Amino acid sequence: MPYYIGDVIKDEKRLVARTPEAFQLSGIDVRINARAEEADPLKKTVRLSGGTVIPYDFLVIGTGAGASFPQIPGIEGEGVFTLKTLPDALRMKAYLKERQCRKAVIVGAGFIAMEMAEALRTTGMDTTIVHRGELPASRWDREFAKLMLEELGRNNVSFLTNREILAVHEGGDSRLRLTTNWEDIETDMVLFALGIRPSVKLAADMGVKIGSSGAIQVNFSQATSIEGVYAVGDCCEVFHRVGRRWVYMPLGDIANKQGRTLGRNIGGGKAIFPGVVGAQSFKLFNLEVAATGLDEMEAASCGYHPASAIVWGNAIAASMPGAKKLGIKLVADRATGKLLGAQAIGEMGAVSRINLLSAALWAGMDLDEIAYLDLAYAPPFGGVWDVIHIAAQTLKKNI
Amino acid sequence: MPYYIGDVIKDEKRLVARTPEAFQLSGIDVRINARAEEADPLKKTVRLSGGTVIPYDFLVIGTGAGASFPQIPGIEGEGVFTLKTLPDALRMKAYLKERQCRKAVIVGAGFIAMEMAEALRTTGMDTTIVHRGELPASRWDREFAKLMLEELGRNNVSFLTNREILAVHEGGDSRLRLTTNWEDIETDMVLFALGIRPSVKLAADMGVKIGSSGAIQVNFSQATSIEGVYAVGDCCEVFHRVGRRWVYMPLGDIANKQGRTLGRNIGGGKAIFPGVVGAQSFKLFNLEVAATGLDEMEAASCGYHPASAIVWGNAIAASMPGAKKLGIKLVADRATGKLLGAQAIGEMGAVSRINLLSAALWAGMDLDEIAYLDLAYAPPFGGVWDVIHIAAQTLKKNI
Repeated sequence: MPYYIGDVIKDEKRLVARTPEAFQLSGIDVRINARAEEADPLKKTVRLSGGTVIPYDFLVIGTGAGASFPQIPGIEGEGVFTLKTLPDALRMKAYLKERQCRKAVIVGAGFIAMEMAEALRTTGMDTTIVHRGELPASRWDREFAKLMLEELGRNNVSFLTNREILAVHEGGDSRLRLTTNWEDIETDMVLFALGIRPSVKLAADMGVKIGSSGAIQVNFSQATSIEGVYAVGDCCEVFHRVGRRWVYMPLGDIANKQGRTLGRNIGGGKAIFPGVVGAQSFKLFNLEVAATGLDEMEAASCGYHPASAIVWGNAIAASMPGAKKLGIKLVADRATGKLLGAQAIGEMGAVSRINLLSAALWAGMDLDEIAYLDLAYAPPFGGVWDVIHIAAQTLKKNI
Repeated sequence: MPYYIGDVIKDEKRLVARTPEAFQLSGIDVRINARAEEADPLKKTVRLSGGTVIPYDFLVIGTGAGASFPQIPGIEGEGVFTLKTLPDALRMKAYLKERQCRKAVIVGAGFIAMEMAEALRTTGMDTTIVHRGELPASRWDREFAKLMLEELGRNNVSFLTNREILAVHEGGDSRLRLTTNWEDIETDMVLFALGIRPSVKLAADMGVKIGSSGAIQVNFSQATSIEGVYAVGDCCEVFHRVGRRWVYMPLGDIANKQGRTLGRNIGGGKAIFPGVVGAQSFKLFNLEVAATGLDEMEAASCGYHPASAIVWGNAIAASMPGAKKLGIKLVADRATGKLLGAQAIGEMGAVSRINLLSAALWAGMDLDEIAYLDLAYAPPFGGVWDVIHIAAQTLKKNI
């Protein structure tokens, strides 16, 4: 699914349709509107809704994930949305236009909530985030989350904390009225952006092992516990190279890499999926936000001895006009000095630093190496000592 | 010297003075306008111009480098410049202003020539580059150099090829007239940007070994061949981690790292300078240009079996508005599949990719690893398969 979900809202024309017809032209038998109800690993068959039974040599489970939403009154009503699939986005967009919506509420404050806050606000709607906690984007340090909050404020997105939605009702002036543990909120639409859960029913029913994360267990070849049955994408686990354990991390680029790996293996080649380091990013108006590896809590739960440091620097050289504030947080292991994770935030240069540190994590570099990494220095792109060097030196001193 | 030489021309106020007085306040004995004429490694003394003799325990040679210029008639005249030191830049700036210069000629087409073309053109002067060869920036592939040429053209910088300056004369309408192997060129100033050479006379005279590159030999602690004598910066060699040999690579960030390493060692600590991978970048108007590692010729001279591929992609996801063309060239070893070098060019994202690939080179990654590196994917910052992944996959197929 390499489309940008927020982008569909902003500009539908950018959507590239991948139609079943296109597949069929290339000789692939595509059954649309056909639900796989059941699979039999002994007979090697799949039964579709309607009763058709298809035999298989290889069964690839790519059932993805479904959006989470709370079991509250009114959740099934009109104007209530989740956002996981392309049709979800198109439905939402049609509703916003047909009903001439002026007010939007987003429930949740993860990275999809952040992206959608920008997308909805950019269409001119009054946009409010309603969050159970106090700060957005819990993966990131509180200090960084506060900057996100400021960026939301600068762009007139309201952020209501410690709120839970109790029910969705028909509205008065607006189309909907949300009752919460606090005040009532009038809105024309509500989007529940509370994360996703792997869709594993088909797999579990046929006896495929489900991991402790709740997603399908796979090995480095994307094979499940049953011979001839494979899984890729948002329905399965992935190996975390820093944590050295299998985790659930449903992201589009990972799904693509797993798919390519499996395609090679099924096609007669040999490939393994080498795992991830947990790199992730999003854009929030004028902020780049990115992270990779483990935070302190995750690191400790893996048995590491984490120490961390936050350094504020400049994405470009101090001698250049127009300073670009950039925050970097590093997490490293006290026992070995190895990098365990990193986070970054700023108007520019945050994602590029996290990508670089993802390569460092991939390779198992320690802080001494990172402190002296040879980077392509020029003043428009960073200081003679990059923020990364300074962060590594700072954390090294703390250890 | 962490200042941006081109920047001084554009905006003097951004220049931060590092005065001798400031050092003296901190208890360091700074002798200005004092030339070290000779050093005696047996007596451990340095003789200054004027005859003063200073004893030393540690002698640090940081004599830097001098700008190259041709031995031609008129080279010593007014309006003729080289650009290596801060005073060079200030002198040039004063001249440009006092003489109300309208035409500038830059001789040479390396990265300093490129940066200065932008700096001089930005002040509104007619700017012409005069080059012995046909394309700028010989470190980069011809295909990339052609893009630089187009960018110069778009910004009305003239580029004269296959020209050598034979003499500098007083001008007619303009202040100077340059005779070449072709036409005469009228200009108000001329800047020779033909590279630099290490200043090693003091070191060589006292018996310090000079490397085959012409710069001072050092080891990983920055020690020279004579006990108690050290060297850092543009006067000495540096270890290239990919070529696995000592090279001359006079760049500001490397000098800084060497200085820090040596400071620790002299101060009683222990540090080694782990070397470089050859990362380098510059900005040319709206283009980012960067490279790291070895090109094919360098790689072959090191005994590798280089193969290369150029891939043109997009710095941001295809679904995003405003495509940003990005070119990546990778060089890898046919025997091992290991990355040996990379080059990049584009309006955005070139430097960040080269920094990432510098970390990959540092760690000795092969193409298979790079093809599946976990990066912080989000559409505003790259495709679900980044140009780096695609380039690695493409080159892997060629090998």
